[in-house]
Amino acid sequence: MDKNVKEIHAANARYVEGFGDKGSLSHHPARNIAIVTCMDCRLDPAKFAGLAKGDAHVIRNAGGRVTDDVIRSLLISYKMLGTKEWFVIQHTHCGMMGFTNEDARELFASDAHVHGIDPTEAHYIDFMPISGTIEENLVRDVRRLRTHPLVPASIVIHGYVYDVHTGRLIVVEEAEKIGAAK
Amino acid sequence: MDKNVKEIHAANARYVEGFGDKGSLSHHPARNIAIVTCMDCRLDPAKFAGLAKGDAHVIRNAGGRVTDDVIRSLLISYKMLGTKEWFVIQHTHCGMMGFTNEDARELFASDAHVHGIDPTEAHYIDFMPISGTIEENLVRDVRRLRTHPLVPASIVIHGYVYDVHTGRLIVVEEAEKIGAAK
Repeated sequence: MDKNVKEIHAANARYVEGFGDKGSLSHHPARNIAIVTCMDCRLDPAKFAGLAKGDAHVIRNAGGRVTDDVIRSLLISYKMLGTKEWFVIQHTHCGMMGFTNEDARELFASDAHVHGIDPTEAHYIDFMPISGTIEENLVRDVRRLRTHPLVPASIVIHGYVYDVHTGRLIVVEEAEKIGAAK
Repeated sequence: MDKNVKEIHAANARYVEGFGDKGSLSHHPARNIAIVTCMDCRLDPAKFAGLAKGDAHVIRNAGGRVTDDVIRSLLISYKMLGTKEWFVIQHTHCGMMGFTNEDARELFASDAHVHGIDPTEAHYIDFMPISGTIEENLVRDVRRLRTHPLVPASIVIHGYVYDVHTGRLIVVEEAEKIGAAK
């Protein structure tokens, strides 16, 4: 058994020991919140937004982008599990900035000799790099969500940028302004 | 300013105050790990797997499913940010079980009168409900990842089920067994 597995099993055993009565929590988020953010290893949304277990759905991908999969997840979050307020939180110094789909495809092409790899598939993937500033990208992503035909006007949507150097959340899109789209 | 926003801003202000020197962390995960898990509000992967800030990428969606967006994120995680070991962690009593795409579409159809909604779009979305047992679903999802043409054989992939009633991680797919696919 390798190091990571061993450490995760040990951490989980300690977690189980202190689990207490958390097994009775509802799967309906208590604060009716869903958060969309980046997979970045420096981000811990439970900590930077003060979320306790049972409070909120947390959806994360490369960039914290509003992809079709994020929309699928948010629709289930609202329609089946009752969330009413969504926070899209992207961040400064994101790894999704500064490259293009062509760059990514070339990177995979250089791996053609690697065991198990066929780089052809890379030409069929949109890696969704971020162009322009993070604020421009966030506004675009939030607007995509706001104008989606299955997202009711009653859902409150916020857009934030998280500063990785200070931990601070900065409001970029105020819910009131975005709401005007519908 | 509503309650959730007020509380998140207050929690974030406290977080910023105790942020210390975390601003210097690398965006390359220190433990070379990526975790894929469900958005469920009862799950806190940093806690149940013992991850510190800077340790691991965390990717989450409805079900912890291996969707195209999750594959996109994992490919960036490995190729640009150096992760070498991936954990797919689904869980017991998942909200994605017990309904079908047809059920979901009917649910949205019943919303036709809601301001801002046009339910037509629901017919074009695969909500990715989980059929069969969670273990069967996990094995299928892990296999999808293992056999992807851009995932090198060197990436170690694990499959776990998290028990929401105890907090325990249960091994379903051992990396050694899955590795045999390539």
